[in-house]
Amino acid sequence: MPSPRPTEDGLIARYFAPIAGEGALGLRDDAALLRPAPGHDLVLTVDGLVAGVHFFPDDPPASVARKALGVNVSDLAAKGAEPVGFLLALALPEGWTEGWLAAFAGGLGEAAREVRCPLLGGDTTRAGGALTLSITALGQVPRGTMVPRTAARAGDRLLVTGTVGDAALGLALRLDPDAAWARALAPEHRAHLLDRYLHPRPRIALARALREHARAAMDVSDGLAGDLAKMMRAAGLSAEVDAAAIPLSEAARAAIGLEPALMERVLTGGDDYEILCAVPGDLAEELARAGEAAGVALAEIGRATPGEGLPVFAGPDGARRFERGSFSHF
Amino acid sequence: MPSPRPTEDGLIARYFAPIAGEGALGLRDDAALLRPAPGHDLVLTVDGLVAGVHFFPDDPPASVARKALGVNVSDLAAKGAEPVGFLLALALPEGWTEGWLAAFAGGLGEAAREVRCPLLGGDTTRAGGALTLSITALGQVPRGTMVPRTAARAGDRLLVTGTVGDAALGLALRLDPDAAWARALAPEHRAHLLDRYLHPRPRIALARALREHARAAMDVSDGLAGDLAKMMRAAGLSAEVDAAAIPLSEAARAAIGLEPALMERVLTGGDDYEILCAVPGDLAEELARAGEAAGVALAEIGRATPGEGLPVFAGPDGARRFERGSFSHF
Repeated sequence: MPSPRPTEDGLIARYFAPIAGEGALGLRDDAALLRPAPGHDLVLTVDGLVAGVHFFPDDPPASVARKALGVNVSDLAAKGAEPVGFLLALALPEGWTEGWLAAFAGGLGEAAREVRCPLLGGDTTRAGGALTLSITALGQVPRGTMVPRTAARAGDRLLVTGTVGDAALGLALRLDPDAAWARALAPEHRAHLLDRYLHPRPRIALARALREHARAAMDVSDGLAGDLAKMMRAAGLSAEVDAAAIPLSEAARAAIGLEPALMERVLTGGDDYEILCAVPGDLAEELARAGEAAGVALAEIGRATPGEGLPVFAGPDGARRFERGSFSHF
Repeated sequence: MPSPRPTEDGLIARYFAPIAGEGALGLRDDAALLRPAPGHDLVLTVDGLVAGVHFFPDDPPASVARKALGVNVSDLAAKGAEPVGFLLALALPEGWTEGWLAAFAGGLGEAAREVRCPLLGGDTTRAGGALTLSITALGQVPRGTMVPRTAARAGDRLLVTGTVGDAALGLALRLDPDAAWARALAPEHRAHLLDRYLHPRPRIALARALREHARAAMDVSDGLAGDLAKMMRAAGLSAEVDAAAIPLSEAARAAIGLEPALMERVLTGGDDYEILCAVPGDLAEELARAGEAAGVALAEIGRATPGEGLPVFAGPDGARRFERGSFSHF
């Protein structure tokens, strides 16, 4: 006989209270309480994720949880903010199971501990179709030190963390696993790309160095070409990028070796959650060193240039601009 | 010829940037910035709303916006908090129109101005079915003064704002407009109940008085019987309620006069967004006076009593307990 469905309060007590932070008041009040650190500003961000739009409905629930928190914490990191906590709004579809929810909450708790961003509050309801969730994340910076997206200046050096395009190639593998290049790819490269799509790694270790050295920063969620264009447009600038300097993983190089047309996806595909920043010329080496100390590699890919216009990507086949370089889930 | 769909950034610039607050940075950054007031705690709450679950898909978009913000600001008010701002995650269904979005954003801006709770940030995406939105609202209280849900004591007097059950009767009118009592109801009473369902009025004017006089408080979102039971359970208490003292609107009295069975809905139906509070005996008159000064009527409905157990509602037909007194959208 199936056991009766628990109430919302029952679900909260069973699955979410154990992963909640101190300010969550055991998730037994109408609201959470946060005592801001003196002398700090709060940084706030929200991102919604929808099954079938932002992730595959059959993705492991712990991966969905990790991604939902990761994309938000990535926004905080790009602003130079240290995570403080998050709130979750979860809408469960017809036919959800307690097994799914238990795995989701478990993965969420684990991810929250890793990035030191505790659950503060939430709301659970019935979905009007696909599973839908949104996370609002709060971070903090010493007063006046949030790194804006908009403040790049002409001549600033452009740096990016980690490697670019892995997640877009991972998504391509999910969408077309039988493509010739996909079948020819070595298993470890395939695994690397799939993992990068599923599990963004927010660069919180770099937050402090960004506050100290970067003039402008954003996370690369919608593709390098489009996000760089967005950052430059916000400052009334353009940019010159050396395509050969864009950091690629071994797996991405292997995929592009098998199918050169994938380079376009690498530059325009989303879900990297690396950080792109504009740094005054004399601070770029310091930032790179601070990144190294924090375990985050940074590569210089070009410079901000005066005058408005789409960034120019210079490569062996000449210069390119990406008219629609930004991936959008919308 | 249909004009091309605007991008997400275009929509944000056109509809949401004009209603955004200062910390929203024109909605052109990855995150919002908030400088907390010194000596204050932040109070955080999130609520999700789904078309077809929490509101009717054909409700006026401005009403949907007003309700979404109202239910969150109501949670803040119940904690004694003054609104600071909110973030919105919006998932738009297949076939959404710019007309809908314009009316939604317009209503949201108007409601935000009324409750002095500006838009700080947001995210817009495609829905996986019905329109879904969640709002995270932030409020503030002088440090250490948040009114908890959990701290009632035996002997405390129980007060409730405004009138109870109007929204539940408004919903009943929406669900069964041809019921005998619905057809017999005077047009102005019908209009009152429908409006109360559609447009919650968060009791922010009472926030300060609650901080100063109430020991525990919550907003009545899931029905008086269930929410009172929740508040008492959290304190290890029960309660005695004088059913005749429960404040009813003229419209609700008229409806119950036509159909006495509706009293059950009044006590157990949701969506009132009035505030229920437990007040030390000697402070109840002061709170009622402060409410009057703030334009919010408060009625004393009973007392918290020692010992755990469902609250008892004493009426002309004897004493009743409501086993499943709490409405749930889940």
